[in-house]
Amino acid sequence: SLVPEHAELHLLFSMVTPVGWLERVPSYKEMVEQLGLESPSYGLLGYPLLQSADILMYKPQWVPVGIDQVPHVELTREVARRFNNTWKPIFPEPQARLTEIPKVPGTDGRKMSKSYDNAIYLSDSPDAITAKIRPMITDPARKRRSDPGDPDLCPVFDLHRIFTPEAEREGCATGCRTAGIGCLDCKGVLLTHLLPPLGDIRERRQHFADRPKEVLEVLHEGSRRARKTAQNTMEEVRSAVGLEP
Amino acid sequence: SLVPEHAELHLLFSMVTPVGWLERVPSYKEMVEQLGLESPSYGLLGYPLLQSADILMYKPQWVPVGIDQVPHVELTREVARRFNNTWKPIFPEPQARLTEIPKVPGTDGRKMSKSYDNAIYLSDSPDAITAKIRPMITDPARKRRSDPGDPDLCPVFDLHRIFTPEAEREGCATGCRTAGIGCLDCKGVLLTHLLPPLGDIRERRQHFADRPKEVLEVLHEGSRRARKTAQNTMEEVRSAVGLEP
Repeated sequence: SLVPEHAELHLLFSMVTPVGWLERVPSYKEMVEQLGLESPSYGLLGYPLLQSADILMYKPQWVPVGIDQVPHVELTREVARRFNNTWKPIFPEPQARLTEIPKVPGTDGRKMSKSYDNAIYLSDSPDAITAKIRPMITDPARKRRSDPGDPDLCPVFDLHRIFTPEAEREGCATGCRTAGIGCLDCKGVLLTHLLPPLGDIRERRQHFADRPKEVLEVLHEGSRRARKTAQNTMEEVRSAVGLEP
Repeated sequence: SLVPEHAELHLLFSMVTPVGWLERVPSYKEMVEQLGLESPSYGLLGYPLLQSADILMYKPQWVPVGIDQVPHVELTREVARRFNNTWKPIFPEPQARLTEIPKVPGTDGRKMSKSYDNAIYLSDSPDAITAKIRPMITDPARKRRSDPGDPDLCPVFDLHRIFTPEAEREGCATGCRTAGIGCLDCKGVLLTHLLPPLGDIRERRQHFADRPKEVLEVLHEGSRRARKTAQNTMEEVRSAVGLEP
């Protein structure tokens, strides 16, 4: 909202983007299906296109994303190409660059997301985190303590990959495959490695939460710098589409 | 484009407007069907919503429109109501006010529109206008000169209603109903009343076409005044939706 140029670019992109491209975006289809939306909003349908404007405004060659965002970068490339062909070659066609951990699972095994109510928050206390990890879904085929499990099918193990050092992680994997340890044991190991780094982040977060003025200053300074670039891009764009009298 | 606040309001409206409302807008459905659009753009689907932003930005009680625009004013009322319920009662629910002549037919009998290529332009010469009027569609049931016609089914008669004084118009109607005159006679009468006022308008148009600087000044001054109001509205809107940090 501090850089209103994004709304304008989004509106121009909407003229060259077929409705069908947006209806086929996986995150949109998932939202509609999984949340059972009976009347998705026009804005939800166009949200990936707003992201395209957010990206292309700054003409990047690469976009760092999680794996679920890859289709959005693909859409962005198509929008850039269509804009360039329709008016003038202004935009690059950026490539997705996957982050080191391309997907963090939520407590239900789906992608972690506020919308799915399956997220661990950076503000959660150690008790709250523990209460969320304990009932987490594991390999669905491992029904009893005595059943062997498969770490590769277990979202808890995905979290191990992020937080637990290799030796201990492999110990858990072997214990799981041989039914040597139970899921709660495995989650206990995860918690010993999960809680300290999240504690550090929680502290750092609290530092800023206690200083709202400092945060606003950072935001305003960032927006000021972003807006300068955005205004340059929009000058080029307006002249390309013939919007300047 | 001189008032970028419209793009921002449009974007906010898109969050509270179901896709279904827009898919059911008659002008969109007609466009897609009549022009045979295989992949209508996201922008075409959202065009009536952009109009809603154009309207509501200035908080009117009434909107002067042609009859084909009435559904857009209805949509605008629904969007205003939804915004007011979701956030804060900022917008009025404006009513359509039909212009004196709510629909001008094009040369093919459909609504006159540049998109349908059936329009008489204000820049057309008398010869060009005559060449468009002569082959105009009339009452489809009047196939031969000797068939009586029905002026109420004839788009040429709709133009008579706009341009021809009542006495002569009624003469044409009677002549049509009794097959006393032919369609070309009727079109001749229309041209004698159509060409002079369009000539006046064409002259006035040419006056401005010769003075592009004057036109730009008028546009800029208008935009400056509009933008002042738009910025006030957007301040209210941003605070209502919590977009100001």
